[in-house]
Amino acid sequence: MNGAQALIRTLVDSGVDVCFMNPGTSEMHFVAALDDVPEMHGVLALFEGVATGAADGYARMADRPAGVLLHLGPGLGNGLANLHNARKGHVGVVNVVGDHATYHKQYDAQLESDIETVARNVSTWIRTSNDVATVAADAAEAVAVAAGPPAQVATLILPADTSWTEGAEPAAPAPAATPTPPDPDEVARIAAILTGDEPAALFLGGRACRADALVDASRIANATGTKLMAETFPTRIERGAGRVNVDRLGYLAEFAALQLDGLRHLVLVDSKSPVSFFAYPGKASDLVPEGCTVHVLADTAGDPAAALAALAEAVGADPDGATLQRAERPDLPTGPLTAEGVCRAVGALMPEGTIISDEGNTSGLFAPGLTAGAPAHDWLCLTGGAIGQGLPVALGAAVACPDRQVIALQADGSAMYTLQSWWTMAREGLDVVTIIFNNSSYAVLNMELSRVGADAGGEKAKAMLDLTGPDLDFVALATGMGLRATRATTGEELSEQLQAALDADGPSVIEAIVPSIL
Amino acid sequence: MNGAQALIRTLVDSGVDVCFMNPGTSEMHFVAALDDVPEMHGVLALFEGVATGAADGYARMADRPAGVLLHLGPGLGNGLANLHNARKGHVGVVNVVGDHATYHKQYDAQLESDIETVARNVSTWIRTSNDVATVAADAAEAVAVAAGPPAQVATLILPADTSWTEGAEPAAPAPAATPTPPDPDEVARIAAILTGDEPAALFLGGRACRADALVDASRIANATGTKLMAETFPTRIERGAGRVNVDRLGYLAEFAALQLDGLRHLVLVDSKSPVSFFAYPGKASDLVPEGCTVHVLADTAGDPAAALAALAEAVGADPDGATLQRAERPDLPTGPLTAEGVCRAVGALMPEGTIISDEGNTSGLFAPGLTAGAPAHDWLCLTGGAIGQGLPVALGAAVACPDRQVIALQADGSAMYTLQSWWTMAREGLDVVTIIFNNSSYAVLNMELSRVGADAGGEKAKAMLDLTGPDLDFVALATGMGLRATRATTGEELSEQLQAALDADGPSVIEAIVPSIL
Repeated sequence: MNGAQALIRTLVDSGVDVCFMNPGTSEMHFVAALDDVPEMHGVLALFEGVATGAADGYARMADRPAGVLLHLGPGLGNGLANLHNARKGHVGVVNVVGDHATYHKQYDAQLESDIETVARNVSTWIRTSNDVATVAADAAEAVAVAAGPPAQVATLILPADTSWTEGAEPAAPAPAATPTPPDPDEVARIAAILTGDEPAALFLGGRACRADALVDASRIANATGTKLMAETFPTRIERGAGRVNVDRLGYLAEFAALQLDGLRHLVLVDSKSPVSFFAYPGKASDLVPEGCTVHVLADTAGDPAAALAALAEAVGADPDGATLQRAERPDLPTGPLTAEGVCRAVGALMPEGTIISDEGNTSGLFAPGLTAGAPAHDWLCLTGGAIGQGLPVALGAAVACPDRQVIALQADGSAMYTLQSWWTMAREGLDVVTIIFNNSSYAVLNMELSRVGADAGGEKAKAMLDLTGPDLDFVALATGMGLRATRATTGEELSEQLQAALDADGPSVIEAIVPSIL
Repeated sequence: MNGAQALIRTLVDSGVDVCFMNPGTSEMHFVAALDDVPEMHGVLALFEGVATGAADGYARMADRPAGVLLHLGPGLGNGLANLHNARKGHVGVVNVVGDHATYHKQYDAQLESDIETVARNVSTWIRTSNDVATVAADAAEAVAVAAGPPAQVATLILPADTSWTEGAEPAAPAPAATPTPPDPDEVARIAAILTGDEPAALFLGGRACRADALVDASRIANATGTKLMAETFPTRIERGAGRVNVDRLGYLAEFAALQLDGLRHLVLVDSKSPVSFFAYPGKASDLVPEGCTVHVLADTAGDPAAALAALAEAVGADPDGATLQRAERPDLPTGPLTAEGVCRAVGALMPEGTIISDEGNTSGLFAPGLTAGAPAHDWLCLTGGAIGQGLPVALGAAVACPDRQVIALQADGSAMYTLQSWWTMAREGLDVVTIIFNNSSYAVLNMELSRVGADAGGEKAKAMLDLTGPDLDFVALATGMGLRATRATTGEELSEQLQAALDADGPSVIEAIVPSIL
């Protein structure tokens, strides 16, 4: 078999059986080899940022990486923003980038570029497979590295002649990394702090936001009076009725400061010590209050669930001492539609097992509160701040969980970065309902313009944050990619359209016309 | 004034008065400063690849760089593919990338990344302006470097605190680089070769494809029997009735080899020695035939027009000895529409001064031949092979030349990468007619799948190159972004719709339903 065939066989044997791709000429042997390994599911994207973001969403829900196939340096560039998001969210991606044949690179052909340099920004593990004899072993290692812990973006650069040369053999799966077990001394030390008198909080991120880990966190909190808090934008948080509800740290540094105020101890559990997203003139970047000590119970290479279980034991928490969210749903919205009304309808109607991909930005602020008591569900956030992630993540999550409903809460401006996701949702027949919050502006930037202290009075400045003239018509855009689409301007319309979309098979788009909340 | 104000004032004083932008929080002071420098025209793009490609198109037509404003590393990533194209086309771009405040970078905030590393792939000149006292001088230098020769992408990284800190002053424009004048000895040596008996060709690229330079090239050809050839994808070629028509080297290595066959001398004039775009099993990468010597009359830092004039003088060419294209137009197409019919209509109807942005890929193969005798016009190609360039380049060219008609010949698959360009065309009211060749496939990849020798029989492989299921409806997509749009399935419809679009003000889209030519 040739290198491409051995590579794909090895990926499948290692548990990677979905590949989101946007191939070009240098990847044609990889594409041809798809038919030789029937277990591999190739998913075509019309833009690379869709493929990389979908791999992120897939891995968050499947708990194992997907593959991505990109075309040379420019293809990697197009996919870079969502690989950045995956890196920041500690999500594993096996990122295969095709390259020119090894002997062709010296000619500096039209598409020649330095792929390793571009990849370095998102990948700690980068390997160029120049040899057909080792490409399969490289692939096996890439999967193991991507899976972690810590999960990460592993980039395998695949020269065209490595793909097409015969004589390759599949490789056995590489051994998975073992998470660092909790350190009993550190657990005991933190237990002593939490059972002491000083105000403390558990700051939960990554795998600590899964349902079982949150139960232990809640037991600890209730046994010790410790505060619970999750990262601002968790990679995946399991929540809803019957689960533990945790408040997330606010996006605005001013709000976050209030939540952290008075703490003397902040215990990180698979999370990063909180800092402001951006710098603002005269405001602090580090959000940890003066006099507060930061402790690490588990890091990205650790085992946060085991660490929380050990800590619960160490503080003598009641096995049944977790506070579980009771089932409750908001009323359906009525009258002129608002962002709050949209979130209300979602909370009222979403079925059990729903996966929410949340890039609602300002319009989505009400969503966590209004869905807290909805049936058990997963919530996926914009981990790395690079917008254009919500639709691809929804797509990937739906591929990972074909039996579950996905709802994408999507801001208008951000949607336009990777709107091509809709076409792949239609092609794959995925149960994704996208709700576009159309407020005709980059609302978050209008807020930021004043927050950074910039003189926001000018017409030219405001025009750069305004999405009218012309208005975007998301119903037409969705129709153009083959999706059912409707527009809602009242709560009643939105509720009816959402229920119909949830009842239907395949993807739908609802354009919710809402005023900006700012 | 603050750093952002001094920066924009310096850009304008240095001749950069258009900035294509997709800003975020860290660029809010730059945005706010737009109102303080009224000469600067900010053009909003909904995706960074639109902004960078538009700057490329602008500079090709204005012969001076535009600015680009991007948001941190992920924004640069999204803009990277079209910066790659600009780099390969030797087009100047002043690429301003906002960054976190200098003191904020240590906190590894959500959007933190290594911008310089990403930029290195497209920029030889990279400067991080950490000091408000020098940011204006840095900007002036960036403009001079971008303008060249050689023209290039100059990347200025702008920390947020440099933007917002007071105490900056505008800087004077930096001196422009002087092109290397032709070397008289080298001109004489090449003249001796061309007047000798051995078969030779002038291989024209970059600035050698402008009308005056081509007249001198034709004079040389006619005086010496030298063959004329242009690069496969010139950055900008001036052509049409009354100008010199030059054949371009074929994209397919097989065709290019025929064109180059038998040559003993190939004289590069602001061009790169021809190589195959991709490697194919068993085929040569270097297209220069055995026994052919390559000479350089002018390189990217040189003065190709002066060099050709000197060479014409040295070979004793007749001042009026150029062969000029006579005016001729094809008949309008009739019956079922084909890609050839679309190109026929363009050749028949395009007005004088039209600017063609050509990313028609396989469907555009007929266009050069069918427009050769149309009124004088400019032709802009996909310089770097990274698709998704055609619509942004059309947008930028229209901003540079508001009094001229722009026609974008656009393949369907490639259009989907940077379709957001349409919204900005509508917003700016630009006279751009986009003709989408909708053949429902990545036709070029179907060809490449067989050319690389891959076994193309598999259904899964073919599905990865197929754009049906669902069909893309470009009329709906264009309508969704506020453009007039129509669909043509016959030659008569296409001709009528094209004439109407040319007569109208503002942008239009025509979706031409055509069979794949492969």
